[in-house]
Amino acid sequence: MHHVVIIGCGFGGLAAARELARADVRITLIDRSNHHLFQPLLYQVATAGLSAPAISAPIRSILADQRNLTSLMAAVTDIDVNGKAVTLEDGTRIDYDYLVVAAGSTHSYFGHDEWAPLAPGLKTLEDAFDIRRRILMAFEYAERETDPAKRAEWLTFTVIGAGATGVEMAGTLIEIARHTLSGEFRKIDPHAARVVLLEGSERVLGAYPADLSEKARLQLQKLGVDVRTSSRVTDIDAECVRYTDAAGEQRLASRTVIWSAGVAASPLGKALGVPLDRAGRVQVSPELTIAGHPEVFVIGDLAAAISDGKPVPGVSPAAKQMGRVAGRNILHRIAGTALESFQYRDYGSLATIGRKAAIAMVGKFKFSGYAAWLFWLFVHVYFLIGFRNRMLVMSDWAWAYMTFKRSARVISTLVPDHPVDANGERKPVEAARD
Amino acid sequence: MHHVVIIGCGFGGLAAARELARADVRITLIDRSNHHLFQPLLYQVATAGLSAPAISAPIRSILADQRNLTSLMAAVTDIDVNGKAVTLEDGTRIDYDYLVVAAGSTHSYFGHDEWAPLAPGLKTLEDAFDIRRRILMAFEYAERETDPAKRAEWLTFTVIGAGATGVEMAGTLIEIARHTLSGEFRKIDPHAARVVLLEGSERVLGAYPADLSEKARLQLQKLGVDVRTSSRVTDIDAECVRYTDAAGEQRLASRTVIWSAGVAASPLGKALGVPLDRAGRVQVSPELTIAGHPEVFVIGDLAAAISDGKPVPGVSPAAKQMGRVAGRNILHRIAGTALESFQYRDYGSLATIGRKAAIAMVGKFKFSGYAAWLFWLFVHVYFLIGFRNRMLVMSDWAWAYMTFKRSARVISTLVPDHPVDANGERKPVEAARD
Repeated sequence: MHHVVIIGCGFGGLAAARELARADVRITLIDRSNHHLFQPLLYQVATAGLSAPAISAPIRSILADQRNLTSLMAAVTDIDVNGKAVTLEDGTRIDYDYLVVAAGSTHSYFGHDEWAPLAPGLKTLEDAFDIRRRILMAFEYAERETDPAKRAEWLTFTVIGAGATGVEMAGTLIEIARHTLSGEFRKIDPHAARVVLLEGSERVLGAYPADLSEKARLQLQKLGVDVRTSSRVTDIDAECVRYTDAAGEQRLASRTVIWSAGVAASPLGKALGVPLDRAGRVQVSPELTIAGHPEVFVIGDLAAAISDGKPVPGVSPAAKQMGRVAGRNILHRIAGTALESFQYRDYGSLATIGRKAAIAMVGKFKFSGYAAWLFWLFVHVYFLIGFRNRMLVMSDWAWAYMTFKRSARVISTLVPDHPVDANGERKPVEAARD
Repeated sequence: MHHVVIIGCGFGGLAAARELARADVRITLIDRSNHHLFQPLLYQVATAGLSAPAISAPIRSILADQRNLTSLMAAVTDIDVNGKAVTLEDGTRIDYDYLVVAAGSTHSYFGHDEWAPLAPGLKTLEDAFDIRRRILMAFEYAERETDPAKRAEWLTFTVIGAGATGVEMAGTLIEIARHTLSGEFRKIDPHAARVVLLEGSERVLGAYPADLSEKARLQLQKLGVDVRTSSRVTDIDAECVRYTDAAGEQRLASRTVIWSAGVAASPLGKALGVPLDRAGRVQVSPELTIAGHPEVFVIGDLAAAISDGKPVPGVSPAAKQMGRVAGRNILHRIAGTALESFQYRDYGSLATIGRKAAIAMVGKFKFSGYAAWLFWLFVHVYFLIGFRNRMLVMSDWAWAYMTFKRSARVISTLVPDHPVDANGERKPVEAARD
């Protein structure tokens, strides 16, 4: 029986696994987490609007009934395409007949990895918890801060990168400051919080047509977000962000910075020994295989796939479609029948901005505002995995909508007996002051 | 206006704060976390049955409307009873006219603090997440383990201490192994998991009458828990627990150990400079004040209070009642009226064992089994803070009861590129093996 190894249980890997559900193959699915994550809603965990279990499900639970599949919680550290085996973090080698590499992407800091601890990105639940903690702690630090300048720094939130994630984070941060925390502090007024959205290009949501970009910018500004385009970040430290715009070098005093400006493919791409593009993505054939190894498929964010002459975007629906095609192509190879070429079906794009607005683009049909937002809600709930998650998310959102309260504000870290900075690093005690 | 400082927002501190809601005082409530925790249900987070937001609520949210109260997320590191001030972790001093110390308790390892990283206790959300991760990872490691002896070690769970928490953890662990994870693994059968409950004294649930203890033991054994009383732990390492029983020294190979055998009062008790009992609890007057300082009240788990000649137990209802009396006594002091003596009203005790049984004792009325379990459910949901939390917990439990699925199984930690042991510490890579 042929052994199919799938690396990664995101949208791509999961789709490939399910496509082979009734096939006469043996499947090993390897992921370094124990859960499948519904990434489009990860920013809601980061902004305390949803709890982690609402947008994720244990892999074993999802695939328990697929008897031809074994899942392993492990990290793949190397791929031997000639020996047809993958290596796990403890040295175990697993042989394969067919391999689907769906290891996804991670953050890119454009060569400035030293920014990573200061400006976390949002890709995993750990990222979301970290960002959530920083956001909530910023208000706590502001409440205790006696120096007005420092207090203003704690109440200034910077989001770098105005793609969908950045726009969603910025809109939600404003909602937290204006509504959720309203009335809960005594020394500060959360309304005084500023949210600055920095974008290097000229438009927010650059992947959308210019008129929708403009609508998004206006909606953000109406919410109170300070949108600064054509602003390229040059440095980040614990107290400020430096960037360059048309007027020259600028300094923005801000102690909470969130990164959503760059994505890089998983380092596993390098292990395949084939050409990569500038973002580290693997060049694949129309059938989603790599050069010289028709038994190895690369899908999702890790793949630089082309469809109808255009690059396939790194979005969830594309990953799912690629996963299904990879699965079917494995069966074609086994049966000796012709493989499919991957054809990306663009079902549209959605981005939400705050609690009642969004922009949406489905084919040539563009809309924005409240109707787009309802559509966004519906689509995201529909595509969640599992009835229970849908119920949970809908009830959390109904509650939040009615009360402005956010459901998942609890942070588990405690204040230790010594002072720490925003990264949790110990800092020297200042002189006692009343 | 008099300034009341309250240290701790557990059951005691929160009750004291609320008692003063309409008083003409200024209150500062200090807690090192941002939330109030419903501790009786913490073991459910530890066993992946509930998410953290279901049993906790942000302090600011609970007390937003109490205008005479400011809350601070900070750690109190010292108390100057003569200078009437508390010191925070960053050196800030806060003066008070009245002080309520409700800092609670922590784990005690009977002088063996080196056991703490190996055998976590369950007091905070961080503890619960840690335990949950260890439990779920134990099954993951077992699935990957090729050596049958090591696999059995991964599938052996030890709970030390058969008080209510230990009994509840043991009963739930069995449920996880027998039901929740059933069918989800391919190389191991989770049913093969063993749960051993070690208790130094002769009975489980020693605080209950002997006949209820016996019923609890039988229910545990019926569920499949290996109950070993008169077993005193002498050593714990990463692979086993050593203990002494009537037959002599014993060695139990187990890689997941949970500690619920000892409680110690918060170290803040020492800062008060008054006599402490053996567990570090502060001796208090009948009015809950300390010797020489009638403006300082100590309540909850930190207090060694006496009522009707008997020690007041360290349980949530007692802490609440003490909080209310401390609050009222502060008002008496301000008004110059007579203080109340604390009278503990024992409304009964409950402990649940697995999914359908419990034991309960209300005054002289004792009952067990399914009726006790329903009562336990009702009481816990009723006393939760907040309508929304009640809805969440009831829906989570209804789901779990119908499906045996546990709602909060997602762990956020990922497998890193190097192998780690159960504590997350890096370990050397073994030779590659197929």
